[in-house]
Formats: sequence, structure tokens, C-alpha cells
Amino acid sequence: MKNYFIARSRRVRSTPYTSRIENQGVTAYSVYNHMLLPAAFGSLEDSYNHLKEHVQVWDVAGERQVEISGKDSAKLVQLMTCRDLSKSKVGRCYYCPIIDDKAGLINDPVILKLGEDRWWVSIADSDVILFAKGLAIGNNFDVKIFEPNVYILAVQGPKSFKLMENIFGKKITEMKFFGFDYFEFSGAKHLIARSGWSKQGGYEIYVEDTKSGLALYDHLFELGKEFNVKPGCPNLIERIESGLLSYGNDIDNNDNPLECGLDKYVNLDNDIDFLGKEKLQEIRKLGIIKKLRGVKIETKEIDISKSIKLFDEKNNEIGELRSGAYSPHFEKVIGIAMIFKPYWSISQPFKIQINGETFSGKICDLPFI
Amino acid sequence: MKNYFIARSRRVRSTPYTSRIENQGVTAYSVYNHMLLPAAFGSLEDSYNHLKEHVQVWDVAGERQVEISGKDSAKLVQLMTCRDLSKSKVGRCYYCPIIDDKAGLINDPVILKLGEDRWWVSIADSDVILFAKGLAIGNNFDVKIFEPNVYILAVQGPKSFKLMENIFGKKITEMKFFGFDYFEFSGAKHLIARSGWSKQGGYEIYVEDTKSGLALYDHLFELGKEFNVKPGCPNLIERIESGLLSYGNDIDNNDNPLECGLDKYVNLDNDIDFLGKEKLQEIRKLGIIKKLRGVKIETKEIDISKSIKLFDEKNNEIGELRSGAYSPHFEKVIGIAMIFKPYWSISQPFKIQINGETFSGKICDLPFI
Repeated sequence: MKNYFIARSRRVRSTPYTSRIENQGVTAYSVYNHMLLPAAFGSLEDSYNHLKEHVQVWDVAGERQVEISGKDSAKLVQLMTCRDLSKSKVGRCYYCPIIDDKAGLINDPVILKLGEDRWWVSIADSDVILFAKGLAIGNNFDVKIFEPNVYILAVQGPKSFKLMENIFGKKITEMKFFGFDYFEFSGAKHLIARSGWSKQGGYEIYVEDTKSGLALYDHLFELGKEFNVKPGCPNLIERIESGLLSYGNDIDNNDNPLECGLDKYVNLDNDIDFLGKEKLQEIRKLGIIKKLRGVKIETKEIDISKSIKLFDEKNNEIGELRSGAYSPHFEKVIGIAMIFKPYWSISQPFKIQINGETFSGKICDLPFI
Repeated sequence: MKNYFIARSRRVRSTPYTSRIENQGVTAYSVYNHMLLPAAFGSLEDSYNHLKEHVQVWDVAGERQVEISGKDSAKLVQLMTCRDLSKSKVGRCYYCPIIDDKAGLINDPVILKLGEDRWWVSIADSDVILFAKGLAIGNNFDVKIFEPNVYILAVQGPKSFKLMENIFGKKITEMKFFGFDYFEFSGAKHLIARSGWSKQGGYEIYVEDTKSGLALYDHLFELGKEFNVKPGCPNLIERIESGLLSYGNDIDNNDNPLECGLDKYVNLDNDIDFLGKEKLQEIRKLGIIKKLRGVKIETKEIDISKSIKLFDEKNNEIGELRSGAYSPHFEKVIGIAMIFKPYWSISQPFKIQINGETFSGKICDLPFI
């Protein structure tokens, strides 16, 4: 695929780290929540190998926060997600599908419970703030909704634990997965969660104090030398192997959470009130007719800029490939596809056209690794 | 400024015209409503000169539609905008600021009245569909809201009238500015409006039938040869000279419509019901404290990727520059800036730092031409 430049403007917002990553060799950007998201530092495969062995620092400021606070905040947050948050605890992160009244996915954020009446919805790429505002206004909820100045730095990779321990002490290594706490650095308190968009382990630092955050950024690279730290970004190969879904890529508003394998975040047998509940109960009763599955394709190269249809041997359309990358681990292309019911069983063979050539593939389970 | 590539994926949607514009020499993209928006075909200045003299065809499919229909659709559309739509007519386009309950701008779409109970909100870059859905659900409105498969082609430039007449006949030249009607081409009816994001005249074709739309695309280039037709895109220089505002660049959720010079689209003395009305009445009473103004800067080059602060001779901060480009017409940089009250008078001098160098400039009226 030919390469094109990204046009810069204020509308596609920079982050506090943009000038640093540009000095460090970022080569490509995507746009995420109207903000620059680094997409490559040279070779995707080199970055993948490095991420699985060492530690990387990522500018993921594009993961914007929607802060919802006030008397009715818990009610509003629960209204937006099919995951039961009635027993949620302050200091914990919750992966939550956000759906509309037709059960179509609107986003799949991690929600942080900062207090009984204060939440951060750490969003994927759609303006959840507008949905929250519309619902709050329409329902006359007593809430305050805004986008705070939070710019996340992710520290990911197996050596992230040692690096973060060297800066913040032993306490940070004792934090459980999807827990968060506050840690001091250079005169500011930073909310740090044990989370991140890779399966290689690590943390996300919710930087509110930009000055201290930039000092921390530099300190991570200074102290990280002994762990072979590098700048990075969410890695397409690693996240597909790990089965981490990407809103807009693998899932969108035409899909419901049951079709996306998010069953464990769908709580229907209770008396909590959320949008799309009746619709989801109906869908569960009737059964879904398409489902996200893994695929393996007998080729070594793919570039996906839109869905690619998949066909069985009799040329029946069996679904569409939505994300894909060459996996050095499997030595072939792997991907995430939405597959129609009769075809979603494991090992179902299919054909796919990539740049005019036909390749064969097979359906498999998610995650790959 | 160094150039970076744009990373492609399904999340950053292609348009039906993407493969055509890539064959025709697009060089840079922006992302607009999660979709690729062409941003350059080589030199910005060449494209500007061509647009002012000839005719261009633009892939502006990123201008997505939010279709709102049903019994309560007029109520919902009016609730979202401070412009009085009570006397709006079917077959007309209306430029409408959309604001929240704090009077902060959420978008500035053109709204098309398709029928008494059917509207297209032709949006700038934010997910208005989520705001509309939230409001509709919260208010229990009887409406249907979705994003239809509409992919706009703009035909812009002084020769657009002749070109479109050659295809659609004399009737299309008689259409008034911001009127729309249906015109047949290759077996399909296309909604065509006399509108577009330049001041050089032209049309926007709301393509619903993609097959016919692609045939029309090719036909425009075939018949356009005698008018020196070229592919193009919204031109930064032309739109700044013309004072066409860009949501996310010149205006955002921290601004209200009175601060953005949109006074004539703010109707406060009536009994219509819209969000932010009380807040706007209060703002009008107290007076605004910042305002969008034009600026001229004594230099020939600028690249804006974020706001740049402006200072007076005594180093008081007087506002911030949000968009800018070198104007061949004025032979200097011109731009759009948000200026604090004591400084917004015409000819107010200021200083600005661009890449470490200090330049002088002056405030002026909008539009420039």
C-alpha cells in the first residue's frame, strides 16, 4: 500500500509528548478521539519483538477521559453499560461495553471508579462525552460531565515492573491487575493503574500534572536504559495475537456485545437499569447470528484499510475480516473477523482475496496466544 | 514541519472514492468523523489558484449525515440548535450551531430539511449522532436516528456551474444558494444542494447510490476536461480568506456561538425550546469576553498543529491563533484567532512566536475577502 502523509492542524490535537516522540523517531500516526496517536516507530515487527522482551513507553493520550461526577453519576454510568457495576469498588478499573438502546456498541472503555460519585470513562475512539451529556440532559440527572486534562502514558512489556519499581518503589509491584492507586513523582500525585493495551504486562499513568508528567517521561527513559526501554505504541501484531479488540476496527455500532464475545461483561439477570437491556435479553433468547472469531491465512503480508469478505469453497460469503497482521509467532497472517453462524466453528476453511490474489485460511479461537 | 505517514485501518474509514483519489495523486489525508478526508494534492497554493479559477471535485464523504426522522424529529432537531427552525422549509439547507446546555459548541452542521419529519444533519468533526441518541433516549422521543450511507461529492469553483449544467441541465443553475433538489444520473436520483465549503461557488452531491455516484465521479472528470477540472479538497488558504470556520480548529466546546461571530444563527427572543437558551441569554446580557477575529502576520510561512499565543507590546497575552496559512492574495500569513475583549479591535498590533522567531501582526475583520 502506498503511504500518505497526515495533515496537521489544531483539530487533530497534539499531546504533551508529541515533540518528544517526534524526536524519538515516530514514523506514522493514527487519529484517536481527535488526537494524534503514534502508530509506528519504524518496523512493526521489530517493535513487536521488543515489546515482548523489554519495556516500552507509549504516548496514549488519545485515550481521553470522560469525567462524570455528582449525585446521579453512578446512575448515569450504569445506564450506559450492560456490565453490572452495583458492586464496583473505588480504586478499581472495569472494562465496560457501552451500548445504545438497540444494544449496538458505542464504545468499550475502561471505567475507573475514583469515588462513590466520581468516575473516569477511559474511552476508545468515539465521542462518549456527547452520549453522556445527551442522556444526562434528557434525564435531568444531577451530574457534571467534562473532559479533564489527562494524558495517559503507558509503560508496557515484561520489564515494565522492574522499571516502575525503581521509580515508585515496591508498592507498585503489589498492585493487582486493573487496580489503581496514587504515586508521587516530582511534586505531583499521579493515578497509576496496572493495565494497558497489551498482554505483556504494565501500567498506565494518568498524567494530570503535565510538567511532572514530562519529567516522568524523561525519567522513564533515563532509568529505563538498563532495561532497554524504547518508545512505542499499541502494536497491531501483539494486540491481535492477544485478542484485544479495537473499537472501530473489530467492533462497531452494528455489533452487539454478545456477537463480540463480551458475554462476561453482559449482566442481564438482575434488576439494574441500563440501555438496551430488553434488546439484549431478546438477542440472548433468539441467539446471535454472527460472532467475532480468529482467522489464520496462508500468506505473509496484509494491509487492511477496510473489511475484506471471506468465502467458503462454494463461494458462500461467510463473513468479513476486520483486522489483520503478519504474526512472526505463527509465521502467517492472523486476524479478527466477524463470521456468520453456520461458519463460525473452528477449522472452517475459507478463501480471501488480497490485492487480487486468492489465499486460503481457517477459522480459529480468540485469543491466539 | 517534518512529515509523518497516516496509519491505515478499518477504524479510519475509506470512502467509495478513495481508490480514485489515490490514483489521481492525493498526497495527504486528515481524519474527519472517523473517515479519510483528502487534505492535499501536492501544492496547497497551486490548488488554491486552481480552485479560484476553474472547477474541482472533492471527496468530502467525511461530512457524515445523521438522519433523524419520526414524530418528534423536529422537536429533537430544534432542541439541539439555537437557530430558530420553526419557519424552516423542506428543500432548504440551514447552517446551525449545535450547543450543549452550557452553550458550548458541539458542532456546526448544515441541516437539510428532507420532509416535515425527516432531517439530515450534515456534520463537522464530532459524533453528533451520540448526542442526538442520548437526548432522544433521555427525553423518550419518538424518533429514528442513524447514519445513512451517504457519501458527499463537492463540485466547487467558478466553472462548477457550467460543468453541472452540462450534466444535469439548466434547472440546476437556477437553484438558489442553500437550496437542494433531486437530479437523475445513471439510473439513480441524487440529492444535490447548492452549497460547499468554499466561497467559489458550487454544489454538494449527497450520493446514496454508490454505483451511480462512482459513474458520476468519472463523468465529472470526463466532461470537466474542457473546464480544466481537477481533484481537490477543502483548501486551507481559501477557507481562511473566506472566513469559513472549522469546528475543532477555530471553534470548540469551550466557545459559545456569540464568541464565534455566529450571532445571526442565535435566536433568543422567541418561545422555541433549545438547550443552552438560558445560558445564552445570560451571556448576551453580560457580554462576551473573547471573540473570533482575523489576523495578518508579517511572515510568509506557518504550519499550525496547535494554538499559538499572541501578545501585545507589553507582553500581555491577548489571545490565541487557531488556524493560519500563507495567503498569496495578501502576500502574508493570515489566520483566525480567539482574542480577549480589550484587544479585539481592528488594527490591534501583536507579537507571535513561530518556530522560535518573533513576528508582528495585526487584528482585522473576518472574512478577509
